[in-house]
Amino acid sequence: MLEQGGTTAAVISVGNELLFGETVDSNAAWLGRHLSARGIRVVRGYTVGDVAADIEESLDLAMDAADLVIVTGGLGPTPDDLTKAVVARRFGRELVVDAGVQQRLQSHFRSSGYDDVPRRSRGQAEVPRGARALENPSGTAPGILLEVDDVHVVLLPGVPAELKDIVEGALAEHLNALSGPPTHHRVVHTTGLAETSLAERLEPKLGSVADDLKEGIDLAYLPDLQGVDLRFTVRGGSADDADVRFDRLIAALDEVLGPWRFEADGGDIAEAVSRQLRRRGWRLAVAESCTGGLVAKRLTDLPGASEIFVGGILAYDNAVKVGELDVSSEELERDGAVSEVVARQMSIGVVSRFDVEVGVGVTGVAGPGGGSEEKPVGTVWISTSVHDEARASLHRFSGDREAVRERAAQAALAAVYRRLVGGGEGV
Amino acid sequence: MLEQGGTTAAVISVGNELLFGETVDSNAAWLGRHLSARGIRVVRGYTVGDVAADIEESLDLAMDAADLVIVTGGLGPTPDDLTKAVVARRFGRELVVDAGVQQRLQSHFRSSGYDDVPRRSRGQAEVPRGARALENPSGTAPGILLEVDDVHVVLLPGVPAELKDIVEGALAEHLNALSGPPTHHRVVHTTGLAETSLAERLEPKLGSVADDLKEGIDLAYLPDLQGVDLRFTVRGGSADDADVRFDRLIAALDEVLGPWRFEADGGDIAEAVSRQLRRRGWRLAVAESCTGGLVAKRLTDLPGASEIFVGGILAYDNAVKVGELDVSSEELERDGAVSEVVARQMSIGVVSRFDVEVGVGVTGVAGPGGGSEEKPVGTVWISTSVHDEARASLHRFSGDREAVRERAAQAALAAVYRRLVGGGEGV
Repeated sequence: MLEQGGTTAAVISVGNELLFGETVDSNAAWLGRHLSARGIRVVRGYTVGDVAADIEESLDLAMDAADLVIVTGGLGPTPDDLTKAVVARRFGRELVVDAGVQQRLQSHFRSSGYDDVPRRSRGQAEVPRGARALENPSGTAPGILLEVDDVHVVLLPGVPAELKDIVEGALAEHLNALSGPPTHHRVVHTTGLAETSLAERLEPKLGSVADDLKEGIDLAYLPDLQGVDLRFTVRGGSADDADVRFDRLIAALDEVLGPWRFEADGGDIAEAVSRQLRRRGWRLAVAESCTGGLVAKRLTDLPGASEIFVGGILAYDNAVKVGELDVSSEELERDGAVSEVVARQMSIGVVSRFDVEVGVGVTGVAGPGGGSEEKPVGTVWISTSVHDEARASLHRFSGDREAVRERAAQAALAAVYRRLVGGGEGV
Repeated sequence: MLEQGGTTAAVISVGNELLFGETVDSNAAWLGRHLSARGIRVVRGYTVGDVAADIEESLDLAMDAADLVIVTGGLGPTPDDLTKAVVARRFGRELVVDAGVQQRLQSHFRSSGYDDVPRRSRGQAEVPRGARALENPSGTAPGILLEVDDVHVVLLPGVPAELKDIVEGALAEHLNALSGPPTHHRVVHTTGLAETSLAERLEPKLGSVADDLKEGIDLAYLPDLQGVDLRFTVRGGSADDADVRFDRLIAALDEVLGPWRFEADGGDIAEAVSRQLRRRGWRLAVAESCTGGLVAKRLTDLPGASEIFVGGILAYDNAVKVGELDVSSEELERDGAVSEVVARQMSIGVVSRFDVEVGVGVTGVAGPGGGSEEKPVGTVWISTSVHDEARASLHRFSGDREAVRERAAQAALAAVYRRLVGGGEGV
């Protein structure tokens, strides 16, 4: 739950391309981050097409819901740009020419080789009477600010760069006046536990920690295929104060989180693995079967991977496991390709073969075919070798082929990370 | 513009992380594209936090605005997941256990080592009375479909992969019933030419073909990192009639499209490569440096990959290129790792090493570091070997590290495809 109080905001995004999904609404997300960081609480988002009645409806709803209403898009010079006219009509303000904007328009078009502002663009100099034009340094459509019944209404162009320039420029001072106590976040990345299992362990622990540790700290679970991010939020106070409080609460939860959490700015465990390898000056090689290169891909997505990753063997075919990784054909025959012994031999094989400190072996049933009663789709053996000491773990992943492969690669990286930081359960 | 009339839809996105901009709402965009393609017109989008009253308000608004209301997010097992309870209360439907969902939940948790469904997750088996559970193959939260006052209300989990699985799976049949006047599409997949270059060649050709061939057929360019899809659209009429017209127009354009197009139901050239290999009973192995497993990952994303893919060598480190792929250290020293000779030796080396018919070698500068005047970031050599005959090509890809790697993997697969189908220019 959010704490109440402080300035609230609603964002209206205008444009058919947003409704039809031709454009992802990155403006709303950027505004959400920007306003939250200022302690302005975004409480609603509306997306409407280039339809006057719909824009007007969302405007009425937003004004009831928030102190600050930001409308993005529909300020251009083409016939489907309706926002300014709708706002002016809704609030009974006629459109009047803003001398400053007109001057900028003229110099803009003259410097682009026009004698004067083209007819189509002349309307861009108009603002609703009593409104303030917000200079747009990188485009021809200015932002517009007007106050109606104590609600601050801001119109911004939909071009992301122009929107940001105006918010961080001409609008900044006004937003300062509206800004409440800042919001502070701390994200703890975890992997290896489903949201349910993590909550099952965390909620009772949270219940048991002293109130002064958790008071005023919100917790949100943000799951995806690769794990669950825990977002802790504090409103108000200084960033330093918030950091101290986050540190104390998270320390109190470490007994539960320790085996599952990892440190990575970007939230990618491949980054955490790379950092641990660099710290030791170690290098890693992979022996992948069912993940077919996905573990290596994750590691080499990161710049500078060559410092910690030498390469590996893609042993998709069993003959390759035997021929390239010295997997015993007898034991492969006996236990099958998806087995502890094969996973172990794969990770040991690639360590000696590539003369590295760390190896990881992955063999499993990604599906949709190849499953059996004993080894259903999603069964994956993962082995990590540090020098010649191998440790293997059995996993049962749910989901389709893609989900199983993504989860297997994530678990393989997590297993390496646990070996490097010396954690236990998480492997 | 979409045609007016027909089914309308509204999308409600639930989650504080969306309002705060920590997550960009890609689900709404994906749904917008999916529904638009079905001729269902999206007319509103609402974003609300994890607040019961706000979810309920958006529900009322959406039901007034559209025939189909899709709510995403808030279906998880944690305390901030409120969607299902709010919907049930709003429509006066008590929550009842769905036997099918409960069964799936039990088998899911048992296969994950639980005796039974954890208390926290038991609620996931409940649906509002009279509602239909929509199977979620990759997660524990099912989708939910209920009809209220002629409005179709659909609840979907916020995890993108799960949402897509449900919409394309359990919900598809229901959406078919709501879909508007038939819109027929034909997509021609191309790779190897940028959108501009493709248009430069295609537009004059289009201008020269007879009007009756192109009349009433819309063409859209859909570019991404992997190539450009050409989407031809005909509205109304029968599917058979549309197919005939598509065939005639595309045949007339083949002179231009031939060297760049490829056949793959899913639009993935890895699928086209796999099909060509299967047709010949051939198998492939990879020798990857800068792509670090991405080419193999693309091929093994497809079910049944083991029939055509045996594995390969990830030769990220130069020592591996020499030691594992018999790349000549003198020539590597002389021309550098990113060179024609090294690429050729990599593809030849992996063919003989893995005893396969086809090998592909990729070596390049993915960046951001490692570039030089002579070999800037984006420089990639790709070689394909069929038996012992290697052909190499030099590429200069633009974009950041991820873009260069994605484009290099795509170009490597395209090069293999051209070798197999005997095309020329596209390599």
